[in-house]
Amino acid sequence: MPEKIRVGIAGYGNLGRGVEAAIGQNPDMMLAGVFTRRDPSQLQLLDSAVPVHPLDGIANFRDEIDVLILCGGSREDLPQQGPALAAMFNTVDSFDTHAKIPAYFDAVDQAAEPSGHTAIISVGWDPGLFSLNRLLGEAVLPEGQTYTFWGKGLSQGHSDAVRRVPGVAAAVQYTIPVPQAIERVRSGSLPSLSTREKHTRECHVVLAEGADAQSVREAIISMPDYFADYDTTVNFITAEELRERHAAMPHGGFVIRSGQTGASNTQVVEYALKLDSNPEFTSSVLVCYARAAWRLNRQGITGAKTVYDVAPGLLSRKTPQELRKELL
Amino acid sequence: MPEKIRVGIAGYGNLGRGVEAAIGQNPDMMLAGVFTRRDPSQLQLLDSAVPVHPLDGIANFRDEIDVLILCGGSREDLPQQGPALAAMFNTVDSFDTHAKIPAYFDAVDQAAEPSGHTAIISVGWDPGLFSLNRLLGEAVLPEGQTYTFWGKGLSQGHSDAVRRVPGVAAAVQYTIPVPQAIERVRSGSLPSLSTREKHTRECHVVLAEGADAQSVREAIISMPDYFADYDTTVNFITAEELRERHAAMPHGGFVIRSGQTGASNTQVVEYALKLDSNPEFTSSVLVCYARAAWRLNRQGITGAKTVYDVAPGLLSRKTPQELRKELL
Repeated sequence: MPEKIRVGIAGYGNLGRGVEAAIGQNPDMMLAGVFTRRDPSQLQLLDSAVPVHPLDGIANFRDEIDVLILCGGSREDLPQQGPALAAMFNTVDSFDTHAKIPAYFDAVDQAAEPSGHTAIISVGWDPGLFSLNRLLGEAVLPEGQTYTFWGKGLSQGHSDAVRRVPGVAAAVQYTIPVPQAIERVRSGSLPSLSTREKHTRECHVVLAEGADAQSVREAIISMPDYFADYDTTVNFITAEELRERHAAMPHGGFVIRSGQTGASNTQVVEYALKLDSNPEFTSSVLVCYARAAWRLNRQGITGAKTVYDVAPGLLSRKTPQELRKELL
Repeated sequence: MPEKIRVGIAGYGNLGRGVEAAIGQNPDMMLAGVFTRRDPSQLQLLDSAVPVHPLDGIANFRDEIDVLILCGGSREDLPQQGPALAAMFNTVDSFDTHAKIPAYFDAVDQAAEPSGHTAIISVGWDPGLFSLNRLLGEAVLPEGQTYTFWGKGLSQGHSDAVRRVPGVAAAVQYTIPVPQAIERVRSGSLPSLSTREKHTRECHVVLAEGADAQSVREAIISMPDYFADYDTTVNFITAEELRERHAAMPHGGFVIRSGQTGASNTQVVEYALKLDSNPEFTSSVLVCYARAAWRLNRQGITGAKTVYDVAPGLLSRKTPQELRKELL
């Protein structure tokens, strides 16, 4: 039995907890420690035997962690933590601010490469597995069109946006793909679809005391970038309903590539996710890419990487021989 | 503009013709030549400017071909051609006899490695893209089950088996996934499904003169391995009907991975293909893996490879920077 890969977790929210659970499903890995900015004694881990340390002392653990999974957020945490921690550890993260990926890649690369570390950025399902399918679709079918649909699922960014509206005490927002749009894409007809035609948005809002429902609704549905381009439904509910019926974090979506080959044959490729728990699935993807980061590093392949740089076999616990015999 | 990748085609049937068409969709490649065992003057290429040569003189073209795409069959051609041609060229093939893949891999590796060539075997959709999704599914969701469904589509192997039945003049066989089985798998309920529950088989048979329909039907539906374990329908049709209504080669299928994360959250991943032309799609996959074979070879990575060894970025014409900016 080879030694287990020693994984560390930096940041213990929904994603960090999901990573802890996912490591438990992978017998070639062990959770060597959790690092937090909170008071370590306040963290309730799934496995109380795992040591918890303050994040600011993490430099002392360089020899005890083979791969560190960064579970902070893309807005506040990763822009600083990603480069800083890739200078000390092999890392995997789920940086998902699409527009800033090139700059983030460069910053992480400049920290990882000179220090001899391997850092796989933007891992999860989008970016991540969806990115993989966008690439595969257009590589296999160069003459065609790629469509990404999200949902039905709880969008953290849009929920946050609703919560910032004056008069909103609490809220969740679901992104819902339009079934007719998906069917048109699946038919291979290569439709042009506006933003409004692809997704609808559904908000469940708890009003603050004394707030006016009509003006809250107006403020939400007219919000630029987030809602103005969509058909948005706003439902007002009680705090109890929100707690009882909207605590889960389901998500999912579709990447569909439709293209033509030969004279005029239509080919349709679809990748679909239906997730009961968005953070747990993202965590599961992070964990298998952590295995790949460790293996790449042992091969001397360092610097920042993305899912595009990782040969799929590196993700599996199985040997290349087993993969060819059992799965190919 | 960098020089184009010079691709050769060995064998010009449906697959070879599909490769010719696919190369036309990839401006970084050019078709440098077609090699055939038939009389070269008899071949009708899509582009009559492409030179056609006898296959037995292919050794003279080592300096003119960057990657050779092997378009022969898995039963008769590739077991011999795969190793022989990988000793002279970088190659890509669609060897699809699942049980014999490990032995074939070894034979090709022993030819490719010492001669400094890169040979990607078993490329297409199954094996190929489906294999990739079987691996990804179990790597991301270790606690779960993977289901592969094929069809609705024309199966070459099963059509051949029907044609070998005495009294059959011509025939096609469609493999049809059972919709209820797919729905049960999509629900995340991890059903146990027998062979009979997953697929049905539909044969369209033209009887030979004087053949007895009832005994032909019996011989087909009771055929071990091919039909005995399935619910099989046999329809008798005329030669005209066969030509007019069953000449296309549609296919497709589904790889579905369903698993649990955390306490008990169900996650379902589905990859689905709906193909108007099975050989043209397989050809399109071969062509983008030809690009990868050439790039791997230029990096000094030689020997036999499978889709598991190929980082996805190598499949795309785009640069790593473009991929991160546009697709990640």
